[in-house]
Amino acid sequence: MKKFFFLFFCAVPLALSAQQTNQDSVFIAQLYSSMLTDGEAYEDLRFLCKNIGHRLAGSEQAMRAIEWGENVLKEAGCDRVYLMPVEVPHWTRGQQEVGYILDGKEAESIPVKALGGSVGTGGKLTAPVIMVKSIEELQALSNESVKGKIVFINKPMNPALINTGAAYGGAYDIRSKGASESAKKGAVACLIRSLSTADDRFPHTGAMAYEEGVAKIPAAALSTVDAYKLSQLILEKKEISFSLEMDCVAYDRVIQYNVIGEITGKENPNHYIIVGGHLDSWDIGEGAHDDGAGIVQSIEIMRTFQRLNYVPNHTVRCVLFINEEFGNDGGETYASVAKEKSEEHVAAIESDGGGFSPRGFNMDGSDAQLARLESWIPMLESYGVYFVKRGWSGVDISPLKNGRTALYGLSVDPQRYFDYHHSDNDRFENVNKRELLLGSATMASLIYLIDLYGAQ
Amino acid sequence: MKKFFFLFFCAVPLALSAQQTNQDSVFIAQLYSSMLTDGEAYEDLRFLCKNIGHRLAGSEQAMRAIEWGENVLKEAGCDRVYLMPVEVPHWTRGQQEVGYILDGKEAESIPVKALGGSVGTGGKLTAPVIMVKSIEELQALSNESVKGKIVFINKPMNPALINTGAAYGGAYDIRSKGASESAKKGAVACLIRSLSTADDRFPHTGAMAYEEGVAKIPAAALSTVDAYKLSQLILEKKEISFSLEMDCVAYDRVIQYNVIGEITGKENPNHYIIVGGHLDSWDIGEGAHDDGAGIVQSIEIMRTFQRLNYVPNHTVRCVLFINEEFGNDGGETYASVAKEKSEEHVAAIESDGGGFSPRGFNMDGSDAQLARLESWIPMLESYGVYFVKRGWSGVDISPLKNGRTALYGLSVDPQRYFDYHHSDNDRFENVNKRELLLGSATMASLIYLIDLYGAQ
Repeated sequence: MKKFFFLFFCAVPLALSAQQTNQDSVFIAQLYSSMLTDGEAYEDLRFLCKNIGHRLAGSEQAMRAIEWGENVLKEAGCDRVYLMPVEVPHWTRGQQEVGYILDGKEAESIPVKALGGSVGTGGKLTAPVIMVKSIEELQALSNESVKGKIVFINKPMNPALINTGAAYGGAYDIRSKGASESAKKGAVACLIRSLSTADDRFPHTGAMAYEEGVAKIPAAALSTVDAYKLSQLILEKKEISFSLEMDCVAYDRVIQYNVIGEITGKENPNHYIIVGGHLDSWDIGEGAHDDGAGIVQSIEIMRTFQRLNYVPNHTVRCVLFINEEFGNDGGETYASVAKEKSEEHVAAIESDGGGFSPRGFNMDGSDAQLARLESWIPMLESYGVYFVKRGWSGVDISPLKNGRTALYGLSVDPQRYFDYHHSDNDRFENVNKRELLLGSATMASLIYLIDLYGAQ
Repeated sequence: MKKFFFLFFCAVPLALSAQQTNQDSVFIAQLYSSMLTDGEAYEDLRFLCKNIGHRLAGSEQAMRAIEWGENVLKEAGCDRVYLMPVEVPHWTRGQQEVGYILDGKEAESIPVKALGGSVGTGGKLTAPVIMVKSIEELQALSNESVKGKIVFINKPMNPALINTGAAYGGAYDIRSKGASESAKKGAVACLIRSLSTADDRFPHTGAMAYEEGVAKIPAAALSTVDAYKLSQLILEKKEISFSLEMDCVAYDRVIQYNVIGEITGKENPNHYIIVGGHLDSWDIGEGAHDDGAGIVQSIEIMRTFQRLNYVPNHTVRCVLFINEEFGNDGGETYASVAKEKSEEHVAAIESDGGGFSPRGFNMDGSDAQLARLESWIPMLESYGVYFVKRGWSGVDISPLKNGRTALYGLSVDPQRYFDYHHSDNDRFENVNKRELLLGSATMASLIYLIDLYGAQ
């Protein structure tokens, strides 16, 4: 793996610590080997997806997932498992959710998904459709041309970007603020093309927010195939209407829980290295990649440390955050409790990019922390983990940023994630066992190295 | 992507050719962007898989695939497309193919797949089963303990190996020589655990060969799930029998064709850079990853060079080889024709690891060729392509090895390949469009660089 290149340039710095590097490499090999041979993360994921299913924060299923997480962390050998109360929203999409393209022919129903937080339609809402390609194009329209209409924002994720996360970021605004921007022009509802890389008929939901002081109008996603169909009809004809029916309801906020499992450190029990993902998912599909994968990978690390009789120097904490998807309440609460208790967090690691092959880390930290992480990469290259990039680590752990704690996001192969993300198609069957376990072993290796050397 | 690290160590050599590197990077970005935005490889693959399906060399479907390949290469804008006759075997598994585990209870049929080249059973063949873990364990048994029995070789691929290709290599012998080694001990048939990384009920076929002078006995694969079931029954009870029925037939060899499309070079038309994969597949599933992917990726390169009006200096040839799976006749014939015609091949590139995310190249060539390839890797890192490894390039192009021609194998993420390989589950639905296109763009970039600078 670029061996010649590396040996040539790195001979001196690597040689200095060759013996220790060798010991570390041996233990890292054990972590990978143990997980790939005896890891139970895939069966955990099967249970979470098939026996509990999707689990939007605030829902009954989320409570079942919390109970499950608590039990599994105990069985994984944590010496302390507890729940941390978190106030979360409670929103339901209701039973009725359907759309019709009205082009003068007999109307066929097409799948739609309310965006998370949308108001309902209060019965069937029918209006002419006006199509735009972007928020900017919408903003440039006159109020007269939009008033009383359904705005359809048909902005695709840019397929030319190699990093699909960047493509998602580039189209994200149509979901987050499409409804309010439409309402400002007098629209009665907003439809968006799903933020998806797949050509299929699964609409993708996700969080939206209403701007204060602006009328709240219903917002929903169409699948990429139906968005294409609608766009073609609009390009062919002058007048297309759309009929939308959704009975979403927002309830009062409720108390749910972050689930936390610990292995107490033998030398620095009051210094923490945490690893986690988010236990909640959107309320469709099974939340397999987003973020069942991160949950079972994090639990597997605790199990594997026990299996290999590894007792860390620092306390290693596995945190199953509640409500990443709809306001990051779990992450915010965790960070504020940690601050209140003056818990010193050495490092926080998050997996929330799906259970795909690991390729590197995104790191939010100091130059010294980045340099330290880079120095470890040669030990991980034979596992396909080859880069470190400064950048976003993860939503759940982001509130821990304080200038000391090193924040790491596991970076995985990003090509398939947005095929499934927030859709009915985010299912267990679309997760590969080996890819899932490799991600877990990669984070375990990082924890081991931080535990031994510190984060900087 | 490890930017700091690279800049620090590589500042001098990269700076020397910064302007040219920049021009190259711009064109490489166009290749990726053009393919990801306008590439048709995925639709080609859909047609090949769904309208033609599997296509074992010697079969009628293989002839249909040859015709299809010829037409698609013409449409892709090659200025010369032709067929090269190749003699290939003609073997069929027949209609009847079933197994029964006989453990005293009512027998349930289980799926089996004859290994490629196996003789049939001549009606139902029933015998006691003796289980071994390896060829070595089989060889150590007495003739008496094996005589008249069905040998079941229950050797898994090693899950701890990160490179699944190495795990495949480590278990390959049970498929290639299990039957003859069993026959030497007097066995009447040989069953193997499928060479697969998946826990499912798809048996995986693949080539086997009979040793000369040894009795030819039937050989078949069980799925990993059924192999586990059989092994547990054997461990529980003393006497388990198996009933196998397969009506495979070997016919006389027939003539089929390599399909070759060219874009003629403007400066060195008699020097060739070739890219390809194999058009044949096993006779089950759809041959989507193995090797429909390599075929449509190679065709896409020709199409994209046309789309971008890139006229190469050397003649670029896309070769759809026939019969990689069952004797490499296409590769052998191609190389011997090239030698006969004294065609100078600068480089040959093969994609036969499935349509997964590209990660590097395996290279079979001189030190100078390896060094040249390594010097290009920094230009490909932002596409996830980061390593060069000396090693096996590919079956089809391997006969071109002559001490001058540089041989490259596209190395892709290997975790999922052996879930599908040679089974009914190697289907279009298991190929991701973006991963497929990234592989194609990576090979196109390599061709561009070789075309500009030579291979060494």
